[in-house]
Amino acid sequence: MSDPIVTLTTDFGDSSPYVAAMKGVILGINPHARLVDLSHRIPPQSTAHAAHFLAASIPYFPYRSIHVVVVDPGVGTDRALLLVSLDGQRLLVPDNGCWTELARKTGRTPEVIRLSTQRFWRHPVSATFHGRDILAPVAAHLSLGMELHDFGQPVTHWVRFVSPEPKIGKGRVEGEVVLVDSFGNLITNIPGEAVAALGDGTRVQVGDLDVPGRVRAYDEAKPGALVALTSSFGTLEVAVVRGSAALRLHADAGTPVTAISDAHG
Amino acid sequence: MSDPIVTLTTDFGDSSPYVAAMKGVILGINPHARLVDLSHRIPPQSTAHAAHFLAASIPYFPYRSIHVVVVDPGVGTDRALLLVSLDGQRLLVPDNGCWTELARKTGRTPEVIRLSTQRFWRHPVSATFHGRDILAPVAAHLSLGMELHDFGQPVTHWVRFVSPEPKIGKGRVEGEVVLVDSFGNLITNIPGEAVAALGDGTRVQVGDLDVPGRVRAYDEAKPGALVALTSSFGTLEVAVVRGSAALRLHADAGTPVTAISDAHG
Amino acid sequence: MSDPIVTLTTDFGDSSPYVAAMKGVILGINPHARLVDLSHRIPPQSTAHAAHFLAASIPYFPYRSIHVVVVDPGVGTDRALLLVSLDGQRLLVPDNGCWTELARKTGRTPEVIRLSTQRFWRHPVSATFHGRDILAPVAAHLSLGMELHDFGQPVTHWVRFVSPEPKIGKGRVEGEVVLVDSFGNLITNIPGEAVAALGDGTRVQVGDLDVPGRVRAYDEAKPGALVALTSSFGTLEVAVVRGSAALRLHADAGTPVTAISDAHG
Repeated sequence: MSDPIVTLTTDFGDSSPYVAAMKGVILGINPHARLVDLSHRIPPQSTAHAAHFLAASIPYFPYRSIHVVVVDPGVGTDRALLLVSLDGQRLLVPDNGCWTELARKTGRTPEVIRLSTQRFWRHPVSATFHGRDILAPVAAHLSLGMELHDFGQPVTHWVRFVSPEPKIGKGRVEGEVVLVDSFGNLITNIPGEAVAALGDGTRVQVGDLDVPGRVRAYDEAKPGALVALTSSFGTLEVAVVRGSAALRLHADAGTPVTAISDAHG
Repeated sequence: MSDPIVTLTTDFGDSSPYVAAMKGVILGINPHARLVDLSHRIPPQSTAHAAHFLAASIPYFPYRSIHVVVVDPGVGTDRALLLVSLDGQRLLVPDNGCWTELARKTGRTPEVIRLSTQRFWRHPVSATFHGRDILAPVAAHLSLGMELHDFGQPVTHWVRFVSPEPKIGKGRVEGEVVLVDSFGNLITNIPGEAVAALGDGTRVQVGDLDVPGRVRAYDEAKPGALVALTSSFGTLEVAVVRGSAALRLHADAGTPVTAISDAHG
Repeated sequence: MSDPIVTLTTDFGDSSPYVAAMKGVILGINPHARLVDLSHRIPPQSTAHAAHFLAASIPYFPYRSIHVVVVDPGVGTDRALLLVSLDGQRLLVPDNGCWTELARKTGRTPEVIRLSTQRFWRHPVSATFHGRDILAPVAAHLSLGMELHDFGQPVTHWVRFVSPEPKIGKGRVEGEVVLVDSFGNLITNIPGEAVAALGDGTRVQVGDLDVPGRVRAYDEAKPGALVALTSSFGTLEVAVVRGSAALRLHADAGTPVTAISDAHG
């Protein structure tokens, strides 16, 4: 049996004593836990970014991995904290929708527990840091082999992140940028198949600006070229070869992107 | 028995080949060591920041964890390197006071060894990188089960970081910012209890500026509001809801903060 | 037997869902793998930086460590992917020379396999992310104990990174900056012994500018002093004490550096 995997995703920043404290709390309860940093640079309090980040990374992890997510603008208010079991993964999350895009993508039905069993929490519970005082110790106890229902009661309602759906119309698909990667590549919510269905001469626009190139891989065009391609997530991506499309186009999450069939142009 | 935990705290930056080299050295000696990154972004050569960072995070780790700290402006001079055993934790540190705030907070008596047994070091010892050549290999050998006194002689004098003490006067407490977190929240050295003792109408000032709001948790006020609250360290904190108090107030470590009872205003 | 060590070096940025996905893929295949982050901040697509980074860090790791390197401007084109066995280390790399400086430094003969056994890959293979779909799963299978030749055929030709060689002339050595660390220290390719051979009164120049100080360790000079010393890599380094030589001198990788014997000045 391998040691239990516990991943961490936060908006605390890499230099944060808050991350260090959470690692200490988890290992203090289960020194066998195998900590894996996913990201500590989710844009502050951006549950939308967290939603896309988790959907893009969690599915690869092995069965029974535990994922602690602390992107929590509502800390200390009465928002719930949840333990979600979904497609073999277990997540510990604030009830702010950060995990529901992952659920939508997997198409599986989650089992959701609202955390309430206070004997697994650190006391006194800080009003500003439930990651350290509730989520981390619950994750550690879960990694020791406890059952979902030990931590609270099942619930059937929770906050959902409403992912913007692309509009697939006649001869065109309208979507938007959902994630900017660290190269400045623009990852959209437009499925690659929807673009392919428009035919060979499809034009791609970011806002009002035409993206002239179409490639399969970055280096098929020259450095500096603005190109559209299929992202590693299977969706339409706009990139500048060896540069940043986000900087070039002043684009960010939410920027509209359209694919237009040449026949309808 | 779980694998030994060895944490790393440096000012090398996340991208540093120095961090990578230290990880290699530790694993090269003890491949069972369980490496945990705490921070590699301590502000360059800031022993004060390191002191507060370690005091805020080390106490959560399990008994017999090993913590390697490389914030070392005096590398290559005759400052000593220490192995500190404190409240069940073991630290490998330059003798620059980076660990004494942790000792003060725990209230326990440390056992301190000055590293001198050179057969555990890498040779030749670089004049600029004792982290790789002395602290990392000593940490790795310690993780293999060697005893404190194998590494050098006990000492009873060391450099102390003098943490600024808040002045608790009649109707007011004067302190300062000791840590700015990655959200720009200002963590002070003023105990939450000292503020509570001033009574309900207490005013908080950062420099000359009044902090209008008092909340228990960030989201009790509107985005953009400047508020005072109790930090997750139990001390007075000043924050901008979903913003940065450090940027708004041009505040940093050392900025004076005062809590004033309304009765004495 | 200890768990297999798998290190990660990429240019994806610390916040990247691509790194998180690769970690998931590796652990999904071998949950016993012990992941170690080396750097995710190699300057985007800089194989030269990666070459120096790997040469400076990989040699410290224990025998049979596995190192996954994704600095891959040519992803999706017909550049090969390689499994390199070198001096006890195993590397999974794009064929862009990022590993050959390490080979040159160790002086050992590498065994090189061109990855071709597709049953170890994730399918469909993305045209933009071979790190997730080929390198990560091959690393994970290798960590399970498979043999080199299971993954493809041996090759004897590969792309070499041509490291700039210092010119050692009569009374002078001409080299360049090869790495800037996070403090802004300038690490050159000039061997410390070559400088020592020039004698005591040797002058060091960065471009046309004289470096006035010579020290063994940073703190032998005052804060702000511009000094030359021997780096922890054993090469000539130029630093500003408690400051950044890169900023002060507007220097970067490639900036010429010269050491001149006083007798020949």
